[in-house]
Amino acid sequence: MMTNNIKLLIEYDGTKYHGWQRQANLLTVQEVLEDVLGRITKQTVKITGASRTDSGVHALGQVVSFKTNLQIDETSWVKAINSLLPHDIRIKSAEYVHPEFNARFSAKGKKYQYAILNAEQMSPFLRNYSWHVKRPLDLSVMKEAAVYLLGTHDFSSFRSSECSAKSPVRTLEKIEVAMLIPPPLTGGGQGEGELRVFPDNPLILFTFEARSFLQHMVRNIVGTLEEVGRGRFKPTDIKSILEKKDRRHAGQIAPSQGLFLVKIKYE
Amino acid sequence: MMTNNIKLLIEYDGTKYHGWQRQANLLTVQEVLEDVLGRITKQTVKITGASRTDSGVHALGQVVSFKTNLQIDETSWVKAINSLLPHDIRIKSAEYVHPEFNARFSAKGKKYQYAILNAEQMSPFLRNYSWHVKRPLDLSVMKEAAVYLLGTHDFSSFRSSECSAKSPVRTLEKIEVAMLIPPPLTGGGQGEGELRVFPDNPLILFTFEARSFLQHMVRNIVGTLEEVGRGRFKPTDIKSILEKKDRRHAGQIAPSQGLFLVKIKYE
Repeated sequence: MMTNNIKLLIEYDGTKYHGWQRQANLLTVQEVLEDVLGRITKQTVKITGASRTDSGVHALGQVVSFKTNLQIDETSWVKAINSLLPHDIRIKSAEYVHPEFNARFSAKGKKYQYAILNAEQMSPFLRNYSWHVKRPLDLSVMKEAAVYLLGTHDFSSFRSSECSAKSPVRTLEKIEVAMLIPPPLTGGGQGEGELRVFPDNPLILFTFEARSFLQHMVRNIVGTLEEVGRGRFKPTDIKSILEKKDRRHAGQIAPSQGLFLVKIKYE
Repeated sequence: MMTNNIKLLIEYDGTKYHGWQRQANLLTVQEVLEDVLGRITKQTVKITGASRTDSGVHALGQVVSFKTNLQIDETSWVKAINSLLPHDIRIKSAEYVHPEFNARFSAKGKKYQYAILNAEQMSPFLRNYSWHVKRPLDLSVMKEAAVYLLGTHDFSSFRSSECSAKSPVRTLEKIEVAMLIPPPLTGGGQGEGELRVFPDNPLILFTFEARSFLQHMVRNIVGTLEEVGRGRFKPTDIKSILEKKDRRHAGQIAPSQGLFLVKIKYE
């Protein structure tokens, strides 16, 4: 009988992982984390992740929970786990939670963001963290199109054929399309800072919030909105694509490396 | 007789390279670029780089020059080279220049920046692009210390033992230490953008400009200023370290992954 239930907030660079969920013969974040927890607790640890991120997808706020008999203070959990994890996965906090808490089933909402680098040139520093689209995208028609997706819909047209969810109906509480204006990196009064790794690049940032999502829903929506942005679809086409309830009518799937799991909401 | 002299502006993520300069049995940026140019021109191409960046050091504005008989327009050079380069190296522009131009010897100035992530937690996304320092650094004493390095000095105390420069005297035209305040990533009027890969992290950014630098000079200065920031040295100690003209009196060398070659100045 495991006496303690622990919640971890973690972030990871998903570049070299075959996604979150444990798979035979493939490196996954779940496997790496379970192995580290096994070494610390001297027990077999089974963790539950709030979101099963795909291969190459990143997390800024993944949440996991697991049960264990080991009892050390919360800061010690963070230090012990981080000391054994590879540098592309980091624990941000650990917390003892109610025995009924489950990272996946207790979740009340999820937030994802997706980054398109819309520029002639790909950036060596963003190659694993954005989708490079050369042709100039029209932001205003993408914003117009996004409005048709807001609210409760049957999202069958944006669902992976392998999605195991019982219902294709989801409620998109928020969908935003915004241009990240290169922010001024001026600092402490002594003059300009110009490290241009991120700021100089014209990024289009998509934000999605819902209680839950269908498999590949965010990437299928972004891929379709990209086709609106380059004029292959009109904004009103999104309405008829939704109504067709058939994946073949929507656009391409956006590549995984532009997607970030930003936050899981509870309570 | 090679008829054309070409100048390239390039950027690279130095993580997986053993620096700029060609070395036997080690992967370097120069070798990769020379191989690509050889395939395009069907000639053996020898390129000159303005800066010999160390293993793991990045470039946002490296400049190289080379001579060739092939004559295609400048945009075609960029496209042809980028189509054959790995994604962590990109050509930003190509230009036909005067036969006397040499990327290294024509340079009139160089600008480097160095990023310290000063936070309890390392970021998976910045692990290859910054030096993670846990202990809180005092920005004001680091700024005060930096002033002693400005101008013309014998920089023997900040010079690698393997540096081949004839004189240890250099003129630091600019040295800045600034805190990057997390910039607001709000975009096109539709609400917040919160992709926190870079913005949420407290970065201390060092900027250096000089006509030329000694080997490891920037990293030795940053490593020593870090020791000022954590109280091991006083700002005025920098003055006596300079006067000792002996590498053993300065601080540690800062790790390579926080260093960026930002710009080479000509004319």
